[in-house]
Amino acid sequence: MLVLGVDPGSIVTGYGLVERGNQEATCVHFGHIQFPGNIPFYGRIHHIFQATVELMNHYGPEEMAIEDIFYAKNVKSSLKLGHARGAVLIAAVQCGVRIFEYTPLEIKKAVVGYGRATKEQVRSMVQIILKLNRKPNFDAADALAAAICHLNWIRFDPEKQNVLTPGPVGI
Amino acid sequence: MLVLGVDPGSIVTGYGLVERGNQEATCVHFGHIQFPGNIPFYGRIHHIFQATVELMNHYGPEEMAIEDIFYAKNVKSSLKLGHARGAVLIAAVQCGVRIFEYTPLEIKKAVVGYGRATKEQVRSMVQIILKLNRKPNFDAADALAAAICHLNWIRFDPEKQNVLTPGPVGI
Repeated sequence: MLVLGVDPGSIVTGYGLVERGNQEATCVHFGHIQFPGNIPFYGRIHHIFQATVELMNHYGPEEMAIEDIFYAKNVKSSLKLGHARGAVLIAAVQCGVRIFEYTPLEIKKAVVGYGRATKEQVRSMVQIILKLNRKPNFDAADALAAAICHLNWIRFDPEKQNVLTPGPVGI
Repeated sequence: MLVLGVDPGSIVTGYGLVERGNQEATCVHFGHIQFPGNIPFYGRIHHIFQATVELMNHYGPEEMAIEDIFYAKNVKSSLKLGHARGAVLIAAVQCGVRIFEYTPLEIKKAVVGYGRATKEQVRSMVQIILKLNRKPNFDAADALAAAICHLNWIRFDPEKQNVLTPGPVGI
């Protein structure tokens, strides 16, 4: 069971692939989508779409975990964020990857145990849970946190469990 | 020279195809993208992407005109609008259709001659310019207006004229 966590953004889109073994969750790969030079905004959005499709084709995750966003700093930044998030969602539907959305509160609670945790706290806990030997950047850490949150939820939520054999994940 | 105008929205996405002949602009087709029943938000966004790709493959427009949006009612609606607009942009890049963006002011000025024109005024002028025998809905009218605006601009803007032989468009 391989889960892709994504933290979309029009400047940086973080991603992380987490596998659920018998006893624990392990990180298969993480990183962030970068842009080739100075390209127009629509080129960036298309690049996020294309890079996500390539990631999905290469690693073949069954499910994707992504933040359910209801707010952003302001109208302009939320417009941009909407474009980037749309690109990731379209890629998932296109690749037949099931989509699961979690609020920032759910993700932080799942990883740190506290809904108002800082970015640094989330990153530290992600590093500990997945036994990473280097610190991911904040975007990749948020993406990995979404994936961990999903693996946590599907242990308890029967609706999300239909594709899994229940059991401890060790996270 | 066939231009696809699009007015993206997460509830209704209007579109219109306008052809530039020797003397005048004619409407080839217009309509709006509808959703099959009760589908989740990400399904709608993917549907906008897929329907736009199908439109482009079917009619083969060379260029797309779309509103350049800097604002929306609020953060929540701009997030949703961003998703829908992203879907249309990705479809265009995917199909090799060149993208041209115009502000609402530019579009209204091109069609009505007045930047603060109402939706009804825009629709009426679109109907007159394209000699439509029925009123398009507001979303399709805005999409057709974007296409008309683009055809108007490429007569005067050398940067946008590289693919055209200059001449009057009759609009």
